[in-house]
Amino acid sequence: MAETIVIAQGGGPTAVINQTMVGATLEARRRHPGARVLGARHGVRGVRDGDYVVLSDLPEEQLRLIAGTPSAALGSTRDKPDAAYCDKVLEGLKKVSADAFIYIGGNDTSGTQQILTDASGGSMAFVHAPKTIDNDLMENDHTPGFISAAEFVAGAFLSVDLDFRALPGVYVGIVMGRHAGFLTAASAAWRLDGDSGPHLIYVPERAFSVERFLDDVKRTLSRHKRCIVAVSEGVQTGDGTSLVESIVGPDRVERDAHGNVKLSGSDLNRAFETALSEGLPGQRARVDALGYMPRGSIAAISKVDQQEAFDAGARAVEAATHGGGSVALQFDGEKTVMKIVPLSAVAAKTRHMPEDYLDASGTGLSDKGMAYMKRLVPKKYDVGMPFV
Amino acid sequence: MAETIVIAQGGGPTAVINQTMVGATLEARRRHPGARVLGARHGVRGVRDGDYVVLSDLPEEQLRLIAGTPSAALGSTRDKPDAAYCDKVLEGLKKVSADAFIYIGGNDTSGTQQILTDASGGSMAFVHAPKTIDNDLMENDHTPGFISAAEFVAGAFLSVDLDFRALPGVYVGIVMGRHAGFLTAASAAWRLDGDSGPHLIYVPERAFSVERFLDDVKRTLSRHKRCIVAVSEGVQTGDGTSLVESIVGPDRVERDAHGNVKLSGSDLNRAFETALSEGLPGQRARVDALGYMPRGSIAAISKVDQQEAFDAGARAVEAATHGGGSVALQFDGEKTVMKIVPLSAVAAKTRHMPEDYLDASGTGLSDKGMAYMKRLVPKKYDVGMPFV
Repeated sequence: MAETIVIAQGGGPTAVINQTMVGATLEARRRHPGARVLGARHGVRGVRDGDYVVLSDLPEEQLRLIAGTPSAALGSTRDKPDAAYCDKVLEGLKKVSADAFIYIGGNDTSGTQQILTDASGGSMAFVHAPKTIDNDLMENDHTPGFISAAEFVAGAFLSVDLDFRALPGVYVGIVMGRHAGFLTAASAAWRLDGDSGPHLIYVPERAFSVERFLDDVKRTLSRHKRCIVAVSEGVQTGDGTSLVESIVGPDRVERDAHGNVKLSGSDLNRAFETALSEGLPGQRARVDALGYMPRGSIAAISKVDQQEAFDAGARAVEAATHGGGSVALQFDGEKTVMKIVPLSAVAAKTRHMPEDYLDASGTGLSDKGMAYMKRLVPKKYDVGMPFV
Repeated sequence: MAETIVIAQGGGPTAVINQTMVGATLEARRRHPGARVLGARHGVRGVRDGDYVVLSDLPEEQLRLIAGTPSAALGSTRDKPDAAYCDKVLEGLKKVSADAFIYIGGNDTSGTQQILTDASGGSMAFVHAPKTIDNDLMENDHTPGFISAAEFVAGAFLSVDLDFRALPGVYVGIVMGRHAGFLTAASAAWRLDGDSGPHLIYVPERAFSVERFLDDVKRTLSRHKRCIVAVSEGVQTGDGTSLVESIVGPDRVERDAHGNVKLSGSDLNRAFETALSEGLPGQRARVDALGYMPRGSIAAISKVDQQEAFDAGARAVEAATHGGGSVALQFDGEKTVMKIVPLSAVAAKTRHMPEDYLDASGTGLSDKGMAYMKRLVPKKYDVGMPFV
C-alpha cells in the first residue's frame, strides 16, 4: 500500500513556509514512489473537515512556483484543538489512512502535534516542521522564515535611518514579537557606522519603562540629532504585563483562541506618540508599526532561508519514517545543520533571545548579538555615506 | 571664470533623489569642465547658512555609490522661505557666485524656486528638478521617486493579500498621499486575478464616507471572504475636510511650516479600527500605516526610476543654460521624454489622479488606470496561485 502523508500549515504565514510544504511533497515522492501527499486547507481545520489538495498530483513546476511564493498556500489557522477537536482531527487522519501528519508551524503548532501524539497512541507519525519569524523555538539556532523577515526589518531600519538623517526627528518602529526580541534586534544588522540607527532597541526580554525610554531618547537626540527606535510589540513593564495591556487595561485587551493578548493596533502606537509628545514637546516624532510586512514580503525573501525551509520539509519526511519528532536547525560552529529532536523538547516552549545578545545598556546589541545577526543577515546592499 | 552651480534637495526623501543630485553633478562637470558644484545641506537652509559639500571634488565612484543610496544625502528641509528668508537665500547664492541653483523636490520646492526667481530679478538661473513619490506635479506623466515607491506599495499589497488568503480578515493599509491618490492606486498594480486584493481603494480625489466604507467592506467579505483596503492618508469627507481632521477636530490637528495638516499618526488608524469594530463586531481586522517605508526602501528601488532620476538631474543642468525652468517627465505615447517647462506651470500646483483612472464604483481602477500602473510598475515576481 502506498504511503499517505498529510501536510498542513499553522500560525502566521512566512515568506518561505511554502518551501517547506513543497520540500516535504517532493521528498515524499522521492522516498515513497506512488506516495499520496494531501495538503489540508487551513491547518488542522482542513484535516478535521476532510478539506484537502492532492499535492502529489501536481506537476513539479507548479510546486516550485508555489514554493517561491510567500504566505501559506494551503491556508493557515489559529485554532488550538482541545480534546474533542483533537479526536476529530485524529478521525480525519484515519479516514484518509494517513501514515504521517507533518504540521509546519511555530510554538502553538508544535504543541498541537504533541497533543495529537499523546492522543493517538502511536498509530501514526506526527512531525513538526519549524516555521516562525519570531525565531523563538527551543533547540533551534534559528527558524525558517526568520532570515527573510529579519532582512525586511534590517532594510526597513537602514532606510528609515537614512530618511531621518535627511529630516531629523524621532522614529519609533514597532516590530512583531510577542516574547522574543530576535526580529526587533535584527533592525541593527545593517547599521552603517557608530552614528547609525537603530539607536535604541527594546525587546520583551527586558522590562520596559516609559521614563527610561524618554531619558534614552533625549540622550540619543543630543548625541545623534535624531533617534531611531526599534521596539517589540510585546515589550513588558516590570511586573510582566505587556505594555499594551498596561495601557488598555486587562479587561479591554483582545485575546486570540490561544489566550494570547492581541498586541497590535493603534493603542501601542498612541502610547508612544503620547509619551513622546508629553516628554519631548514640539519634537518631530513618528510612530509606525511595521505590521505584517516583515513576515511575508515578496521583496525580501532570502535564498538561504528558502533553501533551509525546503530542506526542513524534506527532513520532516525522514522524521516521519523514524516515528515522528521536530526538525531543528542547529549551528555547529561553522554551518547550519538539521537534526530531528523529540517533540517534547520544542512543543509549546519559548526560546528567548540570550541575555548576552544585548549590551550593558540593554538597548543595544552586544558583539555576540551583532555577530549572530551578521551571520544570519549578511550585508546585501552597498550604501554611500550621506553628507549629513 | 568657472561655472558655479548650487544643488539642494527639498521635501520628503525618495529612493532615487540622490540619482538626480549626482546626474546634475556629473553633467555639470561634463558641460562645464572645471565647474564648481556645491551641494547645500538641508535644502535652502544650507544655502542661507553657507553650509556646503563640494560635490565636484568627489570621485565619480563615490558619487555613483551615493546615487544608488536612498534618501537625500545632502539632507532635506521642510522650510518654506518667506520674503526675509528668501533674501538670505539669494544673498547666500551670490556669496558663492552661483550661476544657477538647482533645487530637487516637489510642489513646495518648485514654489520656492518660483519665489526666488521673482525675487532675484534674473541674476541667475533657478531650476526645479522633479522629485515626489506623490506623483502630483503638473506637466509630468510621472515623477522620479514614484515608480520605486509604487513598487514597494504594489509588493506590500500583493504580499498582504497572500497573507490574508491564508488567515482571512479585513486589512486596511494606509498609504502616504495628501491630495493625489496615485501611490495608493499603485497597490493594485500586481493583482494576480479577479479575487485578488486590494479590493477597495480610497483616494483623496473622491469623498470618503465611513458608512459607505463599511458597506463596501461587508460586500467584499461576502464575495471574497477577506477584504484588503488601500487608503490614502489624505482621504477627505464630502465637505473637503481631511478624514483625520474630521476625527480629531480642526483645533487639535498639527500643521507643518507649509500649513499642511499632519495626516499621519494613530488617529487615522484608530478611526478605521473603531469603524470596523463597531460596524463589523467580532470581525478580525488589522489597520497598518505603511508609513515612511515606501518612500525610501532600499529593497524596492526601480532601475527605470533610477535612470530617469539621473537623467532629470542632467537635464536640470541643461535647463540652467536656458535661464531656468522645471524639468518634466512626459509620455509621448511610446516612451518617457523629458522637457523643460516654465516654473510657473508647476510651482505650488497639484496634479490629481485623473477621474477616469477609477472605475464606476470609485473604489477600483478603471482599465485606463490599470494600464497606467502596469506601464510604470510592470510585474516583477512570478507567483504561484494559492490553494485557498
